[in-house]
Amino acid sequence: MKSLIMHALEDFPLVRACDDVGRIIVEIAERNHITIEDNDVVVAAQKIFSKAEKRVFSLKDVVASKRAEKLSGATGKDPRFVELVLHETRIVLKASREILLVKDIRGLVCINAGIDKSNIEGDENFALLPEKPDRSARKCRLTIQKLTGKRVAVVICDTYSRPFRRGQVNFAIGMSGTELFRDYRGKKDLFGHVLKVKNVAVVDEIASAAELLMGQGAEGTPVVIVRGLAGSKELDEKSRIRELTISSKDDLFKGVL
Amino acid sequence: MKSLIMHALEDFPLVRACDDVGRIIVEIAERNHITIEDNDVVVAAQKIFSKAEKRVFSLKDVVASKRAEKLSGATGKDPRFVELVLHETRIVLKASREILLVKDIRGLVCINAGIDKSNIEGDENFALLPEKPDRSARKCRLTIQKLTGKRVAVVICDTYSRPFRRGQVNFAIGMSGTELFRDYRGKKDLFGHVLKVKNVAVVDEIASAAELLMGQGAEGTPVVIVRGLAGSKELDEKSRIRELTISSKDDLFKGVL
Repeated sequence: MKSLIMHALEDFPLVRACDDVGRIIVEIAERNHITIEDNDVVVAAQKIFSKAEKRVFSLKDVVASKRAEKLSGATGKDPRFVELVLHETRIVLKASREILLVKDIRGLVCINAGIDKSNIEGDENFALLPEKPDRSARKCRLTIQKLTGKRVAVVICDTYSRPFRRGQVNFAIGMSGTELFRDYRGKKDLFGHVLKVKNVAVVDEIASAAELLMGQGAEGTPVVIVRGLAGSKELDEKSRIRELTISSKDDLFKGVL
Repeated sequence: MKSLIMHALEDFPLVRACDDVGRIIVEIAERNHITIEDNDVVVAAQKIFSKAEKRVFSLKDVVASKRAEKLSGATGKDPRFVELVLHETRIVLKASREILLVKDIRGLVCINAGIDKSNIEGDENFALLPEKPDRSARKCRLTIQKLTGKRVAVVICDTYSRPFRRGQVNFAIGMSGTELFRDYRGKKDLFGHVLKVKNVAVVDEIASAAELLMGQGAEGTPVVIVRGLAGSKELDEKSRIRELTISSKDDLFKGVL
């Protein structure tokens, strides 16, 4: 039978600057009586990497530039917060009272460059995304492999709004050792017709699946182990999250919104 | 331990016009030695409902209107196929060589109004989405409840492209008996800060999770049973998929693409 099982690691500790996330995951998995196995996919919320990698900044330490002051006027946001966003931004896509949307330095399209303060201690502290999420995922994967002897994949995720539909869902923002896509183009369906378009972004579906157990509030379960992914390929070390991103020019949806 | 388990129903038969999808699901679950339990979420690909509800049409039986002829010129698509799309369309959002994107009569934004021919028998046959997917889900849910005595939820899903990112992911297009959102607004995070924005569209995450076991080709596993959803509310009979849809005017992303 094709089954997939996901376990949330409970009683995950608060991650501190310079913590080794991979080591913590292995320890907490053991304490949860979960034996990490080959081909497990470890899905982790970006915030634990942000904390470990000292990506938490206080507005007290930020000086707003003129550009940030101007965007602060357009958005109603604290100019120092806008300065943090601009630091992480390649292109500002929209700046209004409702939304400050950017393409960030990693190529991700996200509100406020993914910067927020949920589950961050201190009233003026904000977490930036990991600088290079693929690198963070790779380091975590290699640590887990070293400590357990098992070949796993790591997916780092964050929760974003999307066009056309209300609410947010979890997306992959970094990964190591797993496939990004399951590509059906050129394959046949039940009746032998060749599929022309289907190229499923499974890494985003993995992120969304794991969120069902993670939660966004005070649950304290930022890591989920996914086991039994159908059709998982051999460990894929070459995939990079930027293969998911798309230039505005190439976006099928250009001109729609 | 917080766990979630998903089972794909294997050896699912080809669904025919007028089949009772709920009854088939119960029978095939039994044959897979899966006992349906209270609070299971049954996730099903839209195509099995399209087939059962006689929503498969042959281009041979379609006469293209003038508008369809015109859009055929812009898109390079068969005018009869465009006619089928227009039949399901409220607003054409974009018509180019690359994409025919519409807001459909159900309020869903999707390419070709969700019409395609994968896993449909016959060279000129295409499946339209179920006319009222919430109604299809409700009927299926009540049949399963009647046959098993268990209170389940049903989510009907389809795989769509999205802006900003390559590839497709599974989205919910109809549902009965489950929550659409997990709303954190007004709740507190680990440090007591009140969350202002987070309202997670869990029904879409459920659809994406199930796709990991379904596949899009010749797998023949259009139904997945999801068990152990954290935070599932009591059976929610009032939710409607249209709560997910958003008017262009209210879309945060308006003007971005």
